[in-house]
Amino acid sequence: MEPSPIVLVTTYHRGKPNVMTMGFHMMIQHDPPLIGAVIGPWDYSYKALKSTRECVIGIPGADLAEKVVDIGNCSGEDIDKFKKFRLTSRPSQDVGAPLIEACIANIECKVVDTRMVSRYNLFILEAVRAWVNPGRKEQRTLHHQGNGTFKVDGKIIDLRERMVKWREFVD
Amino acid sequence: MEPSPIVLVTTYHRGKPNVMTMGFHMMIQHDPPLIGAVIGPWDYSYKALKSTRECVIGIPGADLAEKVVDIGNCSGEDIDKFKKFRLTSRPSQDVGAPLIEACIANIECKVVDTRMVSRYNLFILEAVRAWVNPGRKEQRTLHHQGNGTFKVDGKIIDLRERMVKWREFVD
Repeated sequence: MEPSPIVLVTTYHRGKPNVMTMGFHMMIQHDPPLIGAVIGPWDYSYKALKSTRECVIGIPGADLAEKVVDIGNCSGEDIDKFKKFRLTSRPSQDVGAPLIEACIANIECKVVDTRMVSRYNLFILEAVRAWVNPGRKEQRTLHHQGNGTFKVDGKIIDLRERMVKWREFVD
Repeated sequence: MEPSPIVLVTTYHRGKPNVMTMGFHMMIQHDPPLIGAVIGPWDYSYKALKSTRECVIGIPGADLAEKVVDIGNCSGEDIDKFKKFRLTSRPSQDVGAPLIEACIANIECKVVDTRMVSRYNLFILEAVRAWVNPGRKEQRTLHHQGNGTFKVDGKIIDLRERMVKWREFVD
């Protein structure tokens, strides 16, 4: 069930940027775009996210696989992960957390609901702005299979012609 | 952000099995295994899930791509989808909803929390039993890219040796 693309989450709190690896997240609705994200007290980013209510979700390509694992295996409490992993950051537009240049895409997010945090560590985020980096050669994302094994996107199956055009029914 | 594996969800309500295609879901925690699933009033299965508080999540392989799309593009209100799509079902052990034989794996689920349903159509499910069908030749899952386009699992990257063994720290 797991393999949504593995993502990086940046925060900015008390003058300090941080980044973590996240595997438990989902789209909840398209409009406005809401994302569910599980970030727990065991994550150093948890405090920053709770305080600032802002983050950026970066979607890394398969070329960043090693970094994604290593970022997830150390804590921002001890080190500056942007420095350690030589991640170039760029300023976001609507949130304090930085964009990660090496990612295929970055999504600026604001926390809109924390009522599920105490029970499930589940934050409801609204995606307020998305950046795509078409310059990244590697466009395949990584899907975590558990314990450091990933599946990379493979071939594409295009079944668009089978989709009922729901919009036409609405109009 | 979307492409968790696309899944099928079965329900059994008032003597009638049904199946739908679901794209918005996530793992919330491992132990006990909780799954978040977005199923809305626009889905015919919504009523069955609310009443019975049980379902099965089937994980189809890439060989079922056309069926997955077609199942998602019609409603169980009008037809018996198991018949129409020639899906062989098998009885579950702990829930009334049936298993789908053609899937790579099936997960029996019980609804454990409906507090997020009114606002987000988000059901919290507990996975109570999982069935794996290793006899399925096609083990690659499908990841929806939107509008009927899917990415199939590609090659595997094994970075297990980079994973910190968290358990050792706990012991």
